[in-house]
Amino acid sequence: MPHIDFWHDPASTYSWLAAMRIEDAAARCGVSVRWQPFLLGPAFARLGWATSPFNLQPEKGRYMWRDLERQAAALGAVLVRPNPFPQNGLLAARVALIGHDAGWGPAFTRTVYAAEFSEGRDISGREAVAALLERVDVAPDTVLDRATSTENKLRLKEQSDAAQRLGIFGAPTFVTADGEMFWGNDRLAEALYWARHGSLAGYAV
Amino acid sequence: MPHIDFWHDPASTYSWLAAMRIEDAAARCGVSVRWQPFLLGPAFARLGWATSPFNLQPEKGRYMWRDLERQAAALGAVLVRPNPFPQNGLLAARVALIGHDAGWGPAFTRTVYAAEFSEGRDISGREAVAALLERVDVAPDTVLDRATSTENKLRLKEQSDAAQRLGIFGAPTFVTADGEMFWGNDRLAEALYWARHGSLAGYAV
Repeated sequence: MPHIDFWHDPASTYSWLAAMRIEDAAARCGVSVRWQPFLLGPAFARLGWATSPFNLQPEKGRYMWRDLERQAAALGAVLVRPNPFPQNGLLAARVALIGHDAGWGPAFTRTVYAAEFSEGRDISGREAVAALLERVDVAPDTVLDRATSTENKLRLKEQSDAAQRLGIFGAPTFVTADGEMFWGNDRLAEALYWARHGSLAGYAV
Repeated sequence: MPHIDFWHDPASTYSWLAAMRIEDAAARCGVSVRWQPFLLGPAFARLGWATSPFNLQPEKGRYMWRDLERQAAALGAVLVRPNPFPQNGLLAARVALIGHDAGWGPAFTRTVYAAEFSEGRDISGREAVAALLERVDVAPDTVLDRATSTENKLRLKEQSDAAQRLGIFGAPTFVTADGEMFWGNDRLAEALYWARHGSLAGYAV
């Protein structure tokens, strides 16, 4: 079965939208999903940005929140903005890596996004992440210890380095096995089509 | 008949894609299109940018050209990159304003985009714009004189000021009569749906 890599940052608004629908959309196309958590912060820092472009560009930010609300509503979801935005997703990303080995990674990641963007909750601290693990029936303590081990910290750093090597500059980004890259929740259908057919020939924009 | 305002910059790559399909797409939805040329340069300058973000962010730029090529191909169009990018669209935008009064504005604008992005031609100078006017059977000299009159220069400036007041930060941007804003060629279908129904209720993302 062909696959796509789903590069997503726990703090990324449009990654939330993609995470809500990617498994069903991929299944309809006969494509499997490899969840690839990473952090966008280093990519922003390389551009000299200390925060999200949605904060640095007020007009773009204002538009993004309105667009996100509309898009979420069309998916049946409610938007409640977290404060501050962006949330610090470092621990959530580290935990997600453990979860992807164990099989509960996608469910945990969707729970993180739902808490963050549909309830406006803080997802950054150890207590917050522990509560989210409990929501998906995972005992938090061992997982949190493993997540913050030196080995796992390096593993997340390697994820962000790999994203940089791929030329990823935003999230979500979908990458097919043959290296084709699609940026943005809007491009999910194209990415799945490419994963299945190796081109967009026959795809109607 | 409901309408949408189609805010586009002559140098904008994704405005090219939207210009290729907006009239047919709008007609299918029973919506009319008001073509609103403007320049993005002042919006970029307010952010301290001296050129397009696709030049300032090399990874994003590399991705954009690949994505544009794919999207254009899916619309049956060929991409040939103009050099330099972005092109200076000042004169083309001034001429387009004259054309929108006279009825040949949309055809001229599509011709500008096709020359720029499907042939990679320079669209900036008086000779280049004159040749594009001739392609749509408009005698260039009088039009070019009117386009560069003080009155028409101020009119284009007022277009860019109006875009700023609307909070427009990129192109294409679609704005409905009730003030709802949709940014990007990807949002054309949503914008037309909103123009017709006043919300996205019932719209499937």
